[in-house]
Amino acid sequence: MFIQTVKTPGLAHLSYIIGSQGEAAVIDPRRDVDDYISIAKQHDCRIKYIFETHRNEDLISGAAILANLTHAEVKHGPNADGEVQYADVVHGGDSFNVGNIGLEILETPGHTKDSISILLFDSDFNDGPVGIFTGDTLFIGDVGRTDFYPGQVQKMAGMLFDSLRLIESKAKQAIIYPAHGAGSVCGDGMAEREFSTISHEMNNNPMLKIQQRDTFISKKVAEHHYQPPYFSAMERLNLIGASAYNAPRIVSPKQLAHVDQAKQDLGWLIDVRPVEAFLGGHYPGSLCLPVAMLTAYGVWLLQPEDKITLIAQSEAMANKAALQFSRIGFDHTHSYVPAEFAKFAAAGGEVASLNTVCATQVKELIKQDWQLLDVRKITEYNQDHIKGSKHIFLGHLPEKLNELSANKNYITMCASGMRASVAAAYLRAKGINNVQVFMGSMGAWQNAGYDVET
Amino acid sequence: MFIQTVKTPGLAHLSYIIGSQGEAAVIDPRRDVDDYISIAKQHDCRIKYIFETHRNEDLISGAAILANLTHAEVKHGPNADGEVQYADVVHGGDSFNVGNIGLEILETPGHTKDSISILLFDSDFNDGPVGIFTGDTLFIGDVGRTDFYPGQVQKMAGMLFDSLRLIESKAKQAIIYPAHGAGSVCGDGMAEREFSTISHEMNNNPMLKIQQRDTFISKKVAEHHYQPPYFSAMERLNLIGASAYNAPRIVSPKQLAHVDQAKQDLGWLIDVRPVEAFLGGHYPGSLCLPVAMLTAYGVWLLQPEDKITLIAQSEAMANKAALQFSRIGFDHTHSYVPAEFAKFAAAGGEVASLNTVCATQVKELIKQDWQLLDVRKITEYNQDHIKGSKHIFLGHLPEKLNELSANKNYITMCASGMRASVAAAYLRAKGINNVQVFMGSMGAWQNAGYDVET
Amino acid sequence: MFIQTVKTPGLAHLSYIIGSQGEAAVIDPRRDVDDYISIAKQHDCRIKYIFETHRNEDLISGAAILANLTHAEVKHGPNADGEVQYADVVHGGDSFNVGNIGLEILETPGHTKDSISILLFDSDFNDGPVGIFTGDTLFIGDVGRTDFYPGQVQKMAGMLFDSLRLIESKAKQAIIYPAHGAGSVCGDGMAEREFSTISHEMNNNPMLKIQQRDTFISKKVAEHHYQPPYFSAMERLNLIGASAYNAPRIVSPKQLAHVDQAKQDLGWLIDVRPVEAFLGGHYPGSLCLPVAMLTAYGVWLLQPEDKITLIAQSEAMANKAALQFSRIGFDHTHSYVPAEFAKFAAAGGEVASLNTVCATQVKELIKQDWQLLDVRKITEYNQDHIKGSKHIFLGHLPEKLNELSANKNYITMCASGMRASVAAAYLRAKGINNVQVFMGSMGAWQNAGYDVET
Amino acid sequence: MFIQTVKTPGLAHLSYIIGSQGEAAVIDPRRDVDDYISIAKQHDCRIKYIFETHRNEDLISGAAILANLTHAEVKHGPNADGEVQYADVVHGGDSFNVGNIGLEILETPGHTKDSISILLFDSDFNDGPVGIFTGDTLFIGDVGRTDFYPGQVQKMAGMLFDSLRLIESKAKQAIIYPAHGAGSVCGDGMAEREFSTISHEMNNNPMLKIQQRDTFISKKVAEHHYQPPYFSAMERLNLIGASAYNAPRIVSPKQLAHVDQAKQDLGWLIDVRPVEAFLGGHYPGSLCLPVAMLTAYGVWLLQPEDKITLIAQSEAMANKAALQFSRIGFDHTHSYVPAEFAKFAAAGGEVASLNTVCATQVKELIKQDWQLLDVRKITEYNQDHIKGSKHIFLGHLPEKLNELSANKNYITMCASGMRASVAAAYLRAKGINNVQVFMGSMGAWQNAGYDVET
Repeated sequence: MFIQTVKTPGLAHLSYIIGSQGEAAVIDPRRDVDDYISIAKQHDCRIKYIFETHRNEDLISGAAILANLTHAEVKHGPNADGEVQYADVVHGGDSFNVGNIGLEILETPGHTKDSISILLFDSDFNDGPVGIFTGDTLFIGDVGRTDFYPGQVQKMAGMLFDSLRLIESKAKQAIIYPAHGAGSVCGDGMAEREFSTISHEMNNNPMLKIQQRDTFISKKVAEHHYQPPYFSAMERLNLIGASAYNAPRIVSPKQLAHVDQAKQDLGWLIDVRPVEAFLGGHYPGSLCLPVAMLTAYGVWLLQPEDKITLIAQSEAMANKAALQFSRIGFDHTHSYVPAEFAKFAAAGGEVASLNTVCATQVKELIKQDWQLLDVRKITEYNQDHIKGSKHIFLGHLPEKLNELSANKNYITMCASGMRASVAAAYLRAKGINNVQVFMGSMGAWQNAGYDVET
Repeated sequence: MFIQTVKTPGLAHLSYIIGSQGEAAVIDPRRDVDDYISIAKQHDCRIKYIFETHRNEDLISGAAILANLTHAEVKHGPNADGEVQYADVVHGGDSFNVGNIGLEILETPGHTKDSISILLFDSDFNDGPVGIFTGDTLFIGDVGRTDFYPGQVQKMAGMLFDSLRLIESKAKQAIIYPAHGAGSVCGDGMAEREFSTISHEMNNNPMLKIQQRDTFISKKVAEHHYQPPYFSAMERLNLIGASAYNAPRIVSPKQLAHVDQAKQDLGWLIDVRPVEAFLGGHYPGSLCLPVAMLTAYGVWLLQPEDKITLIAQSEAMANKAALQFSRIGFDHTHSYVPAEFAKFAAAGGEVASLNTVCATQVKELIKQDWQLLDVRKITEYNQDHIKGSKHIFLGHLPEKLNELSANKNYITMCASGMRASVAAAYLRAKGINNVQVFMGSMGAWQNAGYDVET
Repeated sequence: MFIQTVKTPGLAHLSYIIGSQGEAAVIDPRRDVDDYISIAKQHDCRIKYIFETHRNEDLISGAAILANLTHAEVKHGPNADGEVQYADVVHGGDSFNVGNIGLEILETPGHTKDSISILLFDSDFNDGPVGIFTGDTLFIGDVGRTDFYPGQVQKMAGMLFDSLRLIESKAKQAIIYPAHGAGSVCGDGMAEREFSTISHEMNNNPMLKIQQRDTFISKKVAEHHYQPPYFSAMERLNLIGASAYNAPRIVSPKQLAHVDQAKQDLGWLIDVRPVEAFLGGHYPGSLCLPVAMLTAYGVWLLQPEDKITLIAQSEAMANKAALQFSRIGFDHTHSYVPAEFAKFAAAGGEVASLNTVCATQVKELIKQDWQLLDVRKITEYNQDHIKGSKHIFLGHLPEKLNELSANKNYITMCASGMRASVAAAYLRAKGINNVQVFMGSMGAWQNAGYDVET
Repeated sequence: MFIQTVKTPGLAHLSYIIGSQGEAAVIDPRRDVDDYISIAKQHDCRIKYIFETHRNEDLISGAAILANLTHAEVKHGPNADGEVQYADVVHGGDSFNVGNIGLEILETPGHTKDSISILLFDSDFNDGPVGIFTGDTLFIGDVGRTDFYPGQVQKMAGMLFDSLRLIESKAKQAIIYPAHGAGSVCGDGMAEREFSTISHEMNNNPMLKIQQRDTFISKKVAEHHYQPPYFSAMERLNLIGASAYNAPRIVSPKQLAHVDQAKQDLGWLIDVRPVEAFLGGHYPGSLCLPVAMLTAYGVWLLQPEDKITLIAQSEAMANKAALQFSRIGFDHTHSYVPAEFAKFAAAGGEVASLNTVCATQVKELIKQDWQLLDVRKITEYNQDHIKGSKHIFLGHLPEKLNELSANKNYITMCASGMRASVAAAYLRAKGINNVQVFMGSMGAWQNAGYDVET
């Protein structure tokens, strides 16, 4: 009897494959399903069931794709708002066998209306469950967000409170297997720790420890979460079932001859190299989205249907970026251009660069006509910020561009300079050219001993 | 905060690396320590501590080797019989920090006198431990064996009973991380399951559930365990610290010209291919030890200081075998010969093969002058066996060879035919030539509907 | 300017990719075209042209597939018997540029009517060609066979003679790049050497050295070549263009429960493990076709449309076998079964094995009622054979089965025992059960000092 | 009979392994010898001989190391100035067998006094050699340099002329296998083409075509070649035999806390990322040496005994750099630091960047007080340069630093901006801070249509 976690960095998504005696089940598969198939093979198991703990809003579910390849049955909780088309509906108390493993459904709505949790029993040692898959209902150190149904936050928070009580009563001795880890937009304040038990959470998880229903609800109502625009597309897609992802077959990478032509034919130029490389040299008009930040910020700056050309150091780097895009339904990454800017400049091409400034310089520049633009989350900004800085969350730049002016001078900042670089590149691409990046940003400012407002 | 398990197949050994905020610790490292170093690097961590839960008797500890490479400190429990030379002694209550992780020592003797368990706390969520490393004290589904000190089984079993109570009182909500999984010779009746919690074990582990000290002790006294001869070498070595393993650099593999010469120069010819390949063609006098069975049975048929030449299908297969040998201190695997027997025969070489017989044939042959030789464990044999079969445990063949005669005809058998093949090859190598292998063995016999004695 | 050879073992096929300054061309691509695309990428080149030196009869051309993926143009020589549908016709003197490379067509019929050779020039150093692609017209150490057009051997041999003179006159200083190496069925007596020049061949190649047209023709007429039945399918397919090969996606490998059921559902059971493993244990009725022998002998024993289940040691081995089958148009390898015969026997399954005999035993057995069956090529048999042995070429067993009797006892032999094992398995699958394999075969016989007839 | 080329990028070095019937020979092995051993294994060959075509001055020979591992014999030409200690001396006419391969020595001094060439015969087709290893005597498109012996250029050039005539007379029909390809400092004007024959070279190689001894000598005397300072160390080392290279075992990479401390403990900080990344952010005082430029320019800016800390994007990149350093005897690359500059700045660290300017900007700046510093080779500079630019070859910066002033403003330039970045970083590290890089350099300048001086 084995359990293996398949993590998706960027989305902080956790999926699981469990198996015993030639049979296996997958919980919350992502779109690229090869890993599940390969793990099942290693253990000489046939995938029998696929469970979705709820309809995902932040990534494409691979359930329909994996079912198609393996003939496994997909199981999904009941949903009054519309049934998932490729799945059977399961209800509280339904149970399933996977070799020696027994699985039992708990209905645990709150994060979404269709959320379920799944108890895991060992039929050879079956006095109580040994594990529980909690989806986005309960995380390590936090619980799921409840703000997805407009006007129903209070109701959903109350449902979540009750679901958590049900989990406590059924699974005290179990290991917890949630659908997200630290860094996900589906919750906040999750532990960095990747392992826990329900009873440890009952003693330590700040939200799980709240025993008053009202207190719990008002805490949830007061939370602030961002909701990227692609969530609605994910929800629609995960109702009908996504198609398998086919990596773009990049046959003949070639250095760009002229950037202008590229923009016409190739859509957005997305530069996925580390920020330093982007700062030092890039195609005019290209966006800065390093591979590790691509999922978190690409979803705000681009649309799923946008045509994308990747700028990367190597084909491997481009493929990694294309895969990450595909997991969230951005499928039009058709090509890649190797990053060789000295060569490009020598051939007569125009190469752009972005200037960086340090804390001492920033302190002087803001006395002149340079506007600090802080692109962190509002919760970070509220905690402490530099006096006189203007706040626009990086993800909101597209919709708030009109608050900025092409005639003004901006210094972008965040916590370290990473998001500030992404923001600066976006402003440049949108015609706001006088932009510099505050390298080190809030960290450098505070380390220099300068004042902040809180 | 991460935890990662490093498994050693063949030995069913489990070791762990944990880390947080740039620091890491390793629990019970094996001799080939590259994996720990590489996992630490992936998480950008420095290895700060190495813990040994007890002095290993079944494999070479990599603690001294890893300490040498990383400058980490090694920690080991107190041992009245002799201190481990490369480690600091730790006592119950001692505690250590690894980033955000807190570790606390429990003294839990019983399996050995120096056994410790280690509680794992998350300092951000520190109401009770979230994990516990139990070494060979407590397994999933079983507890450690207590027969290592001649004449002290009762005393050790009593100590183990008390240690288990201590673990229960301290770590009820914790996930359990033991040093062995199913298949180890360090315990019996372990669960196939690879994950559990202490509270789940308290409800389900048959040995942990025993609440009477006397009952527990008499159960332990009644157990039967084999103890391969290399255990004593391991114990000595793990007191002073083993040297790093250097894989043999096999520069120029060549087909053997004459087996006789090979035997002089090359020591034992160990054929590590699958049994079927051995049965179909092999060098006269070579032993059959497929990679997956090599650790379990090589330790009985060979001595650590024996010179070994590997016969393998490929260099990769030979390297895998050499690595497995090195983990248990058999370091003299200096070379490998590719298995190409038709070529060898065409060049004038002598190729041996082993005949197999099926259940129907066996039923007839034992009526004639063929002796069935059952090489399973005594516990398996006692459960059921074929009437008239002689029992010698595969591991005891070297010392009980005198019970067999070169003039007699033998059919070797086990549960499936795997161990029977290993046994048959050994008999042949020792001059007992009239040997056939019962393919399918006890399984085939019973599936054919024939009688067994119980 | 680079040239890289892509070899296909089993078929001894050689294809080439050349490139310069961002452009590349491929000569005689095989069906699995990934390697060409990946080499082109490594050199940052776009594939511009694909050349076929002639219509292949022994493997599926990948020209149409590669053209489809890269938009390259396919070029093929003129053929009065029917034009290749996916290619442009080129004629002697036509020339093409690939970066700094100049290519020029020579019409060199003889092996086939549409055979061309291609001169390679470096435009920076263009006094004479530096290389020549000779297809199946000229090999290292031999020339192409001329027996493909019934009744036209003399005519084709004459054309070949003239073509060779043309090559000599145009490319004396060039390196030769032929379409096959030693081991191909498209010629005989090729050198083991993988590199040569035209002038070295002019001094050393026995067939190229013949200066009399008549002598050359009569030599060619006297040659004996086998022509496997799938050749005609290849010829048809390479006229219209094959589809891309999609590897079977083996989702859930499972041990067979009953061989009988397998035979119904799974078609031929093809065991691709080394011969020794097959001899030691296999499914009754399965064929022995080790990966390295699969292309050479599978084409005689199976039909392209046959359903095939692979028996292999690992998935990697099965995939390798499936790929080799696909290169010659055998696309129905839909699944694989791991080879674990002791387990299978223990579960009640029937496991077969094949007995081997050595030279001394053979010498005795042929005095009794055992018939030696020599399955080598007729040319090998004619050179020397054991008195009393019957000859049927391994590839002709299917059509000459009626010459054998299920009531007789056979010992199969070849040069070493490899082909003898393949033959023995085939006889068994066809109901001729009393078969043993002469391990070492002719080699062992002669090394034992026994007499042969010549 | 196979031949395989092992290329060393950066050094443009070509070495070879040939084999036949279980035996192999290596020609001019580099220091990291694993590839030769692994290729020999693939072909099931034992390495019997190692040949050095001459004493290498530009890289560490691996002959002594490989001989030590394989017990092969090393063969080297006669050298009046001092014998290679680990080799046997061979003379013209000496011959050796490697399976079916025959090798015959030609003494071909000129590039060095001990230079030999080696004819390759196929003993089955032995009318004339089929290949020739020419070392640094004859390249494709050029011949070896003859300026290594002070005051003896004329004499050496004459010897080379005679050696080339010997090669022509012996190997007209042979393929040429030289020790360097395009990009090496051991010759100039080599063809980009990687394959040729002696007769093709006789018709096309400009130096080989010169039939007058005097003309040839005066051409050679007029050539200009740079000679990096490490050459003398290589020559000494290759006389006694280098030790094997052991890759630094980088156990715990950590972000630097303070650069100052780093400089004390860690020696030179060598940043091996692409130039754009360096320009965008780097440690103050670090040098810019991208992996691909490291061998060519590191040898001028550093000493073999210098302590080096690598700054890299990943451990793989650092290992690649460390390996390249080791091939030229720079063994003190003991550690690496991951490049994460935004994080470093946020933690209070100081991050430097380098400004780039384009052609239009340069045109204006040089009218002001900015001095253009052209760091190309003198031959490039002489061909065309920008009016008013100062020339110092990049490799000569260390010795000509006194020609520059810390109070002046410099714009560095080369052909594209790559070497200009390396130069700018070096100037900064040496306290000349007002430096900008001309991105696109000469290429951009000319593409902009601006004037050059020739």
